[in-house]
Amino acid sequence: MRSDGRLFNELRKITVTPNYLKHAEGSCLIEFGDTKVLCSASVDNVVPQFLKGQGKGWVSSEYGMIPRSCLVRVPREATKGQKTGRTHEIQRLIGRSMRMACDVDALGERTIWLDCDVIQADGGTRCASITGSFIALMLALEKMRKDKILKTIPFKSFISAVSVGMVDGEPRLDLSYEEDSKAEVDFNVVMSDAKKFVEIQGTSEAEPFSRQDMDAMLDLARRGIEELIKIQEGILGGVIK
Amino acid sequence: MRSDGRLFNELRKITVTPNYLKHAEGSCLIEFGDTKVLCSASVDNVVPQFLKGQGKGWVSSEYGMIPRSCLVRVPREATKGQKTGRTHEIQRLIGRSMRMACDVDALGERTIWLDCDVIQADGGTRCASITGSFIALMLALEKMRKDKILKTIPFKSFISAVSVGMVDGEPRLDLSYEEDSKAEVDFNVVMSDAKKFVEIQGTSEAEPFSRQDMDAMLDLARRGIEELIKIQEGILGGVIK
Amino acid sequence: MRSDGRLFNELRKITVTPNYLKHAEGSCLIEFGDTKVLCSASVDNVVPQFLKGQGKGWVSSEYGMIPRSCLVRVPREATKGQKTGRTHEIQRLIGRSMRMACDVDALGERTIWLDCDVIQADGGTRCASITGSFIALMLALEKMRKDKILKTIPFKSFISAVSVGMVDGEPRLDLSYEEDSKAEVDFNVVMSDAKKFVEIQGTSEAEPFSRQDMDAMLDLARRGIEELIKIQEGILGGVIK
Amino acid sequence: MRSDGRLFNELRKITVTPNYLKHAEGSCLIEFGDTKVLCSASVDNVVPQFLKGQGKGWVSSEYGMIPRSCLVRVPREATKGQKTGRTHEIQRLIGRSMRMACDVDALGERTIWLDCDVIQADGGTRCASITGSFIALMLALEKMRKDKILKTIPFKSFISAVSVGMVDGEPRLDLSYEEDSKAEVDFNVVMSDAKKFVEIQGTSEAEPFSRQDMDAMLDLARRGIEELIKIQEGILGGVIK
Amino acid sequence: MRSDGRLFNELRKITVTPNYLKHAEGSCLIEFGDTKVLCSASVDNVVPQFLKGQGKGWVSSEYGMIPRSCLVRVPREATKGQKTGRTHEIQRLIGRSMRMACDVDALGERTIWLDCDVIQADGGTRCASITGSFIALMLALEKMRKDKILKTIPFKSFISAVSVGMVDGEPRLDLSYEEDSKAEVDFNVVMSDAKKFVEIQGTSEAEPFSRQDMDAMLDLARRGIEELIKIQEGILGGVIK
Amino acid sequence: MRSDGRLFNELRKITVTPNYLKHAEGSCLIEFGDTKVLCSASVDNVVPQFLKGQGKGWVSSEYGMIPRSCLVRVPREATKGQKTGRTHEIQRLIGRSMRMACDVDALGERTIWLDCDVIQADGGTRCASITGSFIALMLALEKMRKDKILKTIPFKSFISAVSVGMVDGEPRLDLSYEEDSKAEVDFNVVMSDAKKFVEIQGTSEAEPFSRQDMDAMLDLARRGIEELIKIQEGILGGVIK
Repeated sequence: MRSDGRLFNELRKITVTPNYLKHAEGSCLIEFGDTKVLCSASVDNVVPQFLKGQGKGWVSSEYGMIPRSCLVRVPREATKGQKTGRTHEIQRLIGRSMRMACDVDALGERTIWLDCDVIQADGGTRCASITGSFIALMLALEKMRKDKILKTIPFKSFISAVSVGMVDGEPRLDLSYEEDSKAEVDFNVVMSDAKKFVEIQGTSEAEPFSRQDMDAMLDLARRGIEELIKIQEGILGGVIK
Repeated sequence: MRSDGRLFNELRKITVTPNYLKHAEGSCLIEFGDTKVLCSASVDNVVPQFLKGQGKGWVSSEYGMIPRSCLVRVPREATKGQKTGRTHEIQRLIGRSMRMACDVDALGERTIWLDCDVIQADGGTRCASITGSFIALMLALEKMRKDKILKTIPFKSFISAVSVGMVDGEPRLDLSYEEDSKAEVDFNVVMSDAKKFVEIQGTSEAEPFSRQDMDAMLDLARRGIEELIKIQEGILGGVIK
Repeated sequence: MRSDGRLFNELRKITVTPNYLKHAEGSCLIEFGDTKVLCSASVDNVVPQFLKGQGKGWVSSEYGMIPRSCLVRVPREATKGQKTGRTHEIQRLIGRSMRMACDVDALGERTIWLDCDVIQADGGTRCASITGSFIALMLALEKMRKDKILKTIPFKSFISAVSVGMVDGEPRLDLSYEEDSKAEVDFNVVMSDAKKFVEIQGTSEAEPFSRQDMDAMLDLARRGIEELIKIQEGILGGVIK
Repeated sequence: MRSDGRLFNELRKITVTPNYLKHAEGSCLIEFGDTKVLCSASVDNVVPQFLKGQGKGWVSSEYGMIPRSCLVRVPREATKGQKTGRTHEIQRLIGRSMRMACDVDALGERTIWLDCDVIQADGGTRCASITGSFIALMLALEKMRKDKILKTIPFKSFISAVSVGMVDGEPRLDLSYEEDSKAEVDFNVVMSDAKKFVEIQGTSEAEPFSRQDMDAMLDLARRGIEELIKIQEGILGGVIK
Repeated sequence: MRSDGRLFNELRKITVTPNYLKHAEGSCLIEFGDTKVLCSASVDNVVPQFLKGQGKGWVSSEYGMIPRSCLVRVPREATKGQKTGRTHEIQRLIGRSMRMACDVDALGERTIWLDCDVIQADGGTRCASITGSFIALMLALEKMRKDKILKTIPFKSFISAVSVGMVDGEPRLDLSYEEDSKAEVDFNVVMSDAKKFVEIQGTSEAEPFSRQDMDAMLDLARRGIEELIKIQEGILGGVIK
Repeated sequence: MRSDGRLFNELRKITVTPNYLKHAEGSCLIEFGDTKVLCSASVDNVVPQFLKGQGKGWVSSEYGMIPRSCLVRVPREATKGQKTGRTHEIQRLIGRSMRMACDVDALGERTIWLDCDVIQADGGTRCASITGSFIALMLALEKMRKDKILKTIPFKSFISAVSVGMVDGEPRLDLSYEEDSKAEVDFNVVMSDAKKFVEIQGTSEAEPFSRQDMDAMLDLARRGIEELIKIQEGILGGVIK
């Protein structure tokens, strides 16, 4: 039994508040238990230098934590004048994942910025960010369709992410901070609705891990992601198809 | 009549959710209409260099906006590697104001960090930040008292802040973004419960303003601040005295 | 009696050396007692991004202190790689004030940079900067008129600034560093020739202050600013009107 | 057949020049075909803040590319004043992997810095960096043992890394830049001599990938890593065991 | 004949105002014609990391230009967040030269900071900075001696600097900006009172130069430096020896 | 006799490996004894702002050291976020020298970047960088000629550089790190094939130096540079003329 009473293959309570922000083209507050991330999608009529003049679009992501989202206050990155390596790693992961969710070539010369700001952290912030960003992105695309900026939503796949790990020798789904900090292995898995993988990042924290352990964790991840995609489908009901 | 139906001397709907954050020693989400600011107070057992070894404490503040708090996405300061002048100006104002709320000398060698993160902006973010920071600060001091870190709460004054301005030649209380952007004069007023001033910052946006206009605006500000302090008293009920 | 022998309502000796710099379009060295600030106005044929293509101009300001302008050497901001919050606060104040001195829309697509470099600091550097910048700005505009870049000087108001404060319970005009560092309240007041206010920034240093104290300080400020504007008029004699 | 004539399961020519640098405690130049990385291990008698006073050590890594290692000159990160997100991501991966190679707790209060500088890039620089860093690290530990700084080498596992990917629908081992840039899926796999996984990072570049594809790629990776570890064993012959 | 009427071997008018700054331990305003540099010496009771605990001192220099010291406004380095390469080059030259003027080992664990701020630039600012810094340094050492911080002034040599160059095929002393910008060769020469060299930096601007040209320029430099040292001796009269 | 057995007027073993890098337009690895510098020339179809639209080109240089090129690991400049003053000084020297090697006006609107990355440092890295950069530059120009981007190579002069110094009272050619660190005087001399000077930078490390010492050092430098230019001629054989 896990300290919060969950089974090994159980997600925490997932709550999504769509359109949380008044000004953003798309947004949601997503909660994986006590982890709360505010995701917004902003449309910018500019593309990065390497895409200029090609008529194609781009999707990019930035990630941040408010200083007291954590147990101990983390220094504000704007004060230090630079982001940590961890922040860079996470925002690159979110950006790559979201470029699998929609056809960026069909956006016109526009960038959609996905901002993920962690309000409260209790493990799994990058997975919550990806799962919530997908919703914010689709809401923004739907708004662009309604506003006649796009003819159709250039949808490719539902995308969700979940963490899995080996804790006390056992595979577990959706680790809380307490579990994550004692896990032997830690995976972040991003999948599409076709049960295919978008990103897999697995790290041994104590000892190298076996192929069998990996297989067990990926089975759990698939199960969790199916549930998350159902939640996404519920929220986006009329939007996609 | 104002565009949102308020009288010239009326505040927007003020909502405070105390203890909004699980990890912070003190926190609240404060809303002035559509303006939403997350305020947290974090206790750090270190003081700035200039206070080392004197047994005294410090209160400091940092301010930030999540990128899509605004109508148009504002670039993330952590990405640019530096804060704007506006951010510096605001966080200095919050810090000075909060050092009037409590006796920093009585904190021991500790810094209390007040982080104000704007989730949604619709005018008056710095005043909401000050009013909310006061609550977060008092909740943190109360926690320190309960945890026997402090014998008593080193309370000095209730502190609240409100914006006032001249719009269409008329003094108005608590400007929304729409009003603020067309105001002829813009004041941010920070006051204590003794109806005394802590900070006054008045700026002419179009034309220099007269002493009479200033007097009218300060009268409105006092009225608004009396209401805000009543709200603070309601929330902090048992805490102070 | 004040430590330098002045009455409570007396300015320090004000000295202005116009055209102090050979290369600048306009400049002066301004001294408020031992406070010495070098102010220059430079014309740049470029405007900030947000004004491009509108045919309008801009006035902006930057402020700095040479490292040994102060009692103790202050670290060079270029070495630290960033400006302090205080510097940001001051240069924003100067910029806003100067945009009340002239009609920026009538400048054409040009920026006038007002650089204020503190050579020696003894209190009141931001007020000396504003008072001196006004002179540098008008000298530059006059040069532009003579050079046929402008048909007329787009003059709006004389602008001067002075500090006032409560020291030992008494209102005083134009605080020296010694007075400033023990003041209970500190005001920086920027006014126009029409006895109207451009900016008011008042800060309680020890205790919140009353409306009566504020009124007494603003009366003193008005008196000081009348004298400063007379000095500006003397120097700019033929230039304006 | 691959464009360089290799079979799908063949590594490029691997060349290691141990002790390439005169001054470093351990170093090598490692070549995976035309990819050349200079790896050095430097011993520093200081540990990061979070380990001070615990008697334990640390292993950290930094990665860089000389500007003309690539087809097109990449801007020097020291000139831009910051590292790219890609650099952060890679150096974090190398550091984590190397902390699986040796018991950092047994190093005493010392940090071993592993610097990986890419001299020429043709795909797989992060995998070459990990494989080469392991050799540099072991040479440095052996030197510390000979110098009586350590009694024994705190060896945990051989660690090597290789890239695998799906190119033209086929799994391939050790992608060159040309293959990498058209791969549908790209994996970086770090393994130990016990055929266990240290890190897995898989990214879909065009389409999400299936579990079968992943299995095929991981089989290839294991095969490649066995060869790489044999090369490491050949070089480190007498050192370990 | 030169455009300002000087002979080829003539210095511009040299003016030194010692003790120009109220707060600095030593200072002067030095003018080489229209070039004006404010030099200050500040005593700091701290030494750089590499000297800690050795009982020795250090002399360091920083150089800056106020933005409108030049014909065209130069961007403020504090705004850009970094110094130009030219600034680095110059301040290193000043620092090395001043460490030849006094015995830094005899200063105790103190750093003397020499700040050179160019108020107006018309060629030769680095040479004026060195010549003026020497005076500021000696005035600070004399003050330290009077204040009983030092028993004697740890004087080594008088140090002055001057520029020389080839202009229109002719060697010339102390180039103005106009001459400097068309010079074929440009030398900065730092010498001691023993007619020995401290630093020589010669640069061909158009064509490589011959040994004979160099010899002619160095002869001119020696002559100029003898005059500059006489001026230094006049000002420091009673101080040294 | 010198510690490595050389005569006072002898260079260390000079080795040049031209075309060391696969991707660069021109490159070489140059070795002065144990000092190894990788020099590359990259052609970029852009010029600095001040040259835009004039049809002229530019040659610029950047210099870096890999962290463990030195006896003690030097912090990576990309990690610190800025270059040291020494790096700025060196790369400016290389750039100026290379602009004497070719006629930049004849390059078209292109910049040639010369990157000098020190792989191993044992004194004289800036002189090796200049001597190697010249070869990389000429190889790149030859490639541009072959690719019909240039009609002819806009060659001006062979350029080489060598260090000389006074060690134990004796002039010596091409100082190793050991000699450099105890030298009384240290010169870096850049010359052309016409036995003319391009740059002279001489620094007294302990005591000011005499004209005779300088003359002896410059004689040695000329001799060393003649040898270096012969080596350059050997490598570039068919390229120039």
